[in-house]
This record gives sequence, C-alpha cells and structure tokens, in this order.
Amino acid sequence: MNFTIDREVLLENLNIISRGLPAKSPMPILTGIKLDVTTTDLYMTSSNTDISVETYINDASLVIEKPGKTVVPGKFFIDIMRKINSKRVNLCLIEDKILVIRADRGEYKLHIMDPLDYPNIEFVSLENPLILPAERIKTLIKQTSFATATSEKKPILTGVHFKLEENHLTAIATDSFRLSQTIMEINDYKPFQITVPNKSLDELAKAIDNYNDNVQLYFSVNKLLVKFKNVLFQTRLLDGNYPDTSKLIPPSYPIIIKFNKDELLEAVERVSLLSPREKLSSLEVAYSIIKLTVSKDHTVVISTTNASVGDATEELIPTDTQIAGPLTIGFSSRYLVEALRSFESSEVSLNCLEGIRPFVITGEKDYNLTQLILPVRMD
Amino acid sequence: MNFTIDREVLLENLNIISRGLPAKSPMPILTGIKLDVTTTDLYMTSSNTDISVETYINDASLVIEKPGKTVVPGKFFIDIMRKINSKRVNLCLIEDKILVIRADRGEYKLHIMDPLDYPNIEFVSLENPLILPAERIKTLIKQTSFATATSEKKPILTGVHFKLEENHLTAIATDSFRLSQTIMEINDYKPFQITVPNKSLDELAKAIDNYNDNVQLYFSVNKLLVKFKNVLFQTRLLDGNYPDTSKLIPPSYPIIIKFNKDELLEAVERVSLLSPREKLSSLEVAYSIIKLTVSKDHTVVISTTNASVGDATEELIPTDTQIAGPLTIGFSSRYLVEALRSFESSEVSLNCLEGIRPFVITGEKDYNLTQLILPVRMD
Repeated sequence: MNFTIDREVLLENLNIISRGLPAKSPMPILTGIKLDVTTTDLYMTSSNTDISVETYINDASLVIEKPGKTVVPGKFFIDIMRKINSKRVNLCLIEDKILVIRADRGEYKLHIMDPLDYPNIEFVSLENPLILPAERIKTLIKQTSFATATSEKKPILTGVHFKLEENHLTAIATDSFRLSQTIMEINDYKPFQITVPNKSLDELAKAIDNYNDNVQLYFSVNKLLVKFKNVLFQTRLLDGNYPDTSKLIPPSYPIIIKFNKDELLEAVERVSLLSPREKLSSLEVAYSIIKLTVSKDHTVVISTTNASVGDATEELIPTDTQIAGPLTIGFSSRYLVEALRSFESSEVSLNCLEGIRPFVITGEKDYNLTQLILPVRMD
Repeated sequence: MNFTIDREVLLENLNIISRGLPAKSPMPILTGIKLDVTTTDLYMTSSNTDISVETYINDASLVIEKPGKTVVPGKFFIDIMRKINSKRVNLCLIEDKILVIRADRGEYKLHIMDPLDYPNIEFVSLENPLILPAERIKTLIKQTSFATATSEKKPILTGVHFKLEENHLTAIATDSFRLSQTIMEINDYKPFQITVPNKSLDELAKAIDNYNDNVQLYFSVNKLLVKFKNVLFQTRLLDGNYPDTSKLIPPSYPIIIKFNKDELLEAVERVSLLSPREKLSSLEVAYSIIKLTVSKDHTVVISTTNASVGDATEELIPTDTQIAGPLTIGFSSRYLVEALRSFESSEVSLNCLEGIRPFVITGEKDYNLTQLILPVRMD
C-alpha cells in the first residue's frame, strides 16, 4: 500500500469514521481503522459492534501508487492527521508491519494490525431507500433522543422508536417519566417499526452535522443503514417490542396556558438554582422538583422550596390562557427545560388536565411535536 | 438591611469575591459571603483562609434604605445574580433570618448565617505600597506559576518565590525538574523575599483579568495584600526558606540553537502524540519523554519511540545555530511545551551544555525570562 492524498480530504473522512471507533474494545482489532486501497479508491472502516462506518474516497487529490489493505491504530492515526499542518500526506506500508506517514519534514511509523483479523462487516443491501433531508433527521434526533432512558432496566427504552404507518413517520422516546413524540408525513414507503439506540443517533447526528443534502435510509430486520455522500453509517437496532404509547397523550385539555418560550425557560432555570436535588430511584439521574401554580385569576407562579437554603418564586405573565380551574403541579425542572429546548417556536403552550395528570407542551410553529411530562406528587 | 443596586455592578464585584469563596470548608460560615451595608457603602467579604477578598461599593446605582450586616450562602447568591435578567435588584433582610432578593417578577429567599460567627479578617495595613501595572503581574504569574510543584512533598515549592534585591524583582518557580525565572527592574523599594502559593496567584490572575491599571502591593510577615480598584485581595505566604536557585542557571552555553517558536511548539506537540507516558514518581504527574538530537551537520530532529504504537520523527530547520558538537537529550515534552508557551517572542533559543545537563530556553523579545529544563537519562 502506498498512496498520497490531501490531508484535509482524509481528515474530513476520518472525522466521520471516528463516530464508529471505540476507545476500548473487547476485540482490540476494532480500536483500529481498516484501510483498503484499490487501484482507484480508498475505503476506510470503523466499528464498535453497535455502529459501523465506511467511507470511500476517490477524490481527485488521491494518488495511488500501490493498492493494499491494513488496520492502523485508530486514535493515533486520527490524532496525527489532526495535528499535522502539511497540505498532502503520504501513507506507505512497509513489509506489512509498519505504516509510514510522511508529511512535510515529519515521519510517523505506526505498528499495524492484520487486516485478515478485522471482522467482516455486512452492510444492509442498498435497495428501496427511504429518502429524507439530513436536516429533518437532525431535527427528529434533537427533538426526541434526550427523552430516552439512561437506565438499562428496560433496554428498549434506551432507544428512539420510529414507526411508519398510514404515510406518517412517528418518532417516540420515553423514559417512563416523560415522552417526546414528533410526526412527519412520508409518502409511498412501506410500513416499518424500528427502535434505534440513542447512542447511535447521537453519533449519526454528529456524522451528518455539516451535511444538508438528502440521506438514504435502508432497513433490515436488525439493522439500519444510513447512506450520505460517500459514507455508509450502520447501526444495530434494539430487540423487543416498544410499548404502546398511543393512549398516553390526552385528546384534549381543559387548561391551556401559553408562554413566551424564552421567558418560561429562563424563569424555570432561575428557580431551579434553589430546588432540592432528588433521586427518583438508584438508577435514575438526580433531578430537581419545581412547582407550577395557576391561580383563579390566571396568575402563574413557578416556585421551589429548599429546606436548607431557602426558596424561590417567579411570577409569569402568560401570553394567553384557557383555564377551567386552579392548578398546582410539581415536576422535574430538568424535564421541562429539556422539553422546552426542543422547540423552535417562540411561543409554547402548556396543556394540562386537572389533578396530578400528565401535561403536554406544544409549540405554535413546531407542528406535530409533543412533549409530555409526568408530574410528581408534592407533599 | 435593605438596599437596591444595579445587578451588573453587584455581579462584577461578586465575580471577584468568588475568587476567595471555598466550595466546601471545615468552617461552614466561610461558604457564605459577608455583606456589610453602612449608611453609604456596601462591603462584601469572602475567605477560604488562604485567600481573603473584600470589595466595597459606593456606586451611584446603590440606594441604601437601611444599613445592616449578614452572611449569605455564597454559591447560591452568586448563581442567582448571574441568572437574573433584571437591571436592578433589591436585597432586604427580614427578621435577621432571611435575605429576600427581588428582581423583576422573581423573589428569592435565602436562609442567612449570623455575621457575628464570621471570622474577623485582618488585612495588612495600607502603608508603603509597591506599585506595579496589573499587566506586569499577570505576565509574572503566567511565566512562572505553571512550573511550581504540584506535590506537597516540599510545600515551599508549591509557591512562586519573589525576591527584591538591588532594584531587581526576581520571580522563580521550580518543581525540581524545571525552573522558570523572570526578572524586572524596580526602583526605590525595600528588599523582600516572599513565596506566594500558586493557587493564590491563579485566583489573583483571574481577579485582575479585566483590570489594566496599577495595582498596589502591601507586605507583612506572613501575608501579601493586593489592592486594585475597590478590591482588597489578600493571601497568606508560604513558610520556610526557598532553595537557592542562583547557581542552577549556567553562565554560558557552547550550544545555542534558535527556532521559530511556533514551528518548534507544533513539532513537539505532534511528536508527543506518540510518546510513551511515564511517571517520574508516585507523586508527580504522568509525563512523556521525547528526544532532541543535533547532528554535526546542524540538523535538528525531535523524535520519540513507543514500543506498543510506533515512532515519530520531526526534522526542524533552526533559524540560527552555534554548535560545538553533536547533542542528544531526552526530556518531558510537557515541560518544553509549557516553557515555550510562556514566551511572547516568535524566535526562541535553546541554550545547551554538552552531556546530560540542564538546558535553558530564552526568547529574543522576552528579556529576563529564563526557562530551564532538566533532561532525563535515555536508555
């Protein structure tokens, strides 16, 4: 193997390859990046068993002197390419033992691994893609993935569920205490139901961060393959049945209060400074409880009491209200903050039932986005 | 106590007060900020026993309705002031139990502590100041403090030593493996020798970060008081005799090699990516060893070998050389990187003796700054 390429072209691809590269692995070969140089193209592969990424380069800057295959220490290879200043780099395999990287007056020799030891990665066949704009995928991920469970108690809840039926694609995430759901219209594609691990979606969002064109999605029984530019990004799917959440969102609400989103968000963040940190269970992350009170005169107050420090109160002026009666609910401030941040709208509605019942946040401009939060009982 | 003030004025002072505020303390009262409102001024005090900070405000925006004293939970008080948006805030003490903070439609009640429990902090008397520009102090700290010891084995080495004699102020820091020294001219001030804890200097540098005027320094047997604007920043000094380092810096060098600083720095950082991480002792931070070789033909090569990963070589073209013979030295790349970063100069000199002897870095524009590094024996 011997080839020369513009460093920036290689680095741009390595940044995407890094999304599938594990820091550690029970299979040490997977801490390497597989390079496969044909007479015309350079292929690079990484895999952490959950995620596998492959890119192929046939950029004009690529000059291949000799084809070949190898597996290079992934982290070191990427670190070196990031730190080098030179415009071009030469990579040359010596005696199938050492990869020599030459850049300006620098020379780096990396011990390589045997490409025959690298597992064969089967990518889903490239048939019948579902085509979506990358922007739409980024939004779907941003609006749902934060609401997945961090606990492995119910593994299926650590993923985002995607369901296509009747020309509607619904994305759902829930950790049992809150739920995020967003719906988009899709025409002429076969129905499916998949649950994608949250970590894979995080890495996918980073991989397509600078990409704004269309993306192709391919499905198999247990894998999702996302193809964009010269990249194949594949993730395993989560096994098991996703719970039916369709009954959780109430059909109508007697209490609807509209707020300027930023005002509400800032008031909640300020009040949260003093709210006591509690644990829901030994597995769930610590969170803090705040109280929202709506009086008969439509005054809205967000407050918290912390026995050891003091208490905080913020009065809010709703932009609009439809209120059947007074209301007091307590809930995790983090859940409300994360839910509010998922909206593009500058005005949001809190839609509530009376009593200790789930409430729902919607935004005037975020059609089909629903954030549901389960209140806690206040003493 | 009852007063109103522009939030930004209060916050700017609180940011300085925070430099003396401990996150935790064996004396819980010290986690509070002491507020002392006279008929005309607001005084605030913080102390972590090493550092004590006092600011007084008689800003035009301060309107005092009622004087008084209290101690408020420091972290919460600062967090609230940072998150509030309102232009003005009102602080009112109720029944000597609760401080009520009112800002726009928000109300925050903090349990306070008894100001009689707050220790009396004696500041050094304001006589015979040494006056220095804040910029100069920031530079002194930046050029030396990184070289102090992190280990408490020799506590005196955890501080920067300042010595004024014969109209020269010398600042010295060493962790026994490297030494940083910078000298400035001072006229008409009495000789002194003090050693200031590194942590105090870090906090001082942050406290005067946005301040560019003159600073007054006052000395007592065991304290240094720095006065600037409306702020008193006082730190304890380290006990004990600072070692005599005057013999460590060689008077002349047979080998002098000049480099473009950024080229050298970048080459060292790149080579370090592959250098093995070692530990000097159980107490010293892990560091990595690189090798610098100067050939008879004046070629300079920086290199490292890592048995498990590979090796790296960077050739450098010196901007100038005075070389008596070939040279090979090994040293911590971190020491060289940190030393190089302390220079403003774009050209630096490596000044070496033959054999495994300390070498010294100087910069054409950084008069009186000397960075010395002790090489290690290479096998």
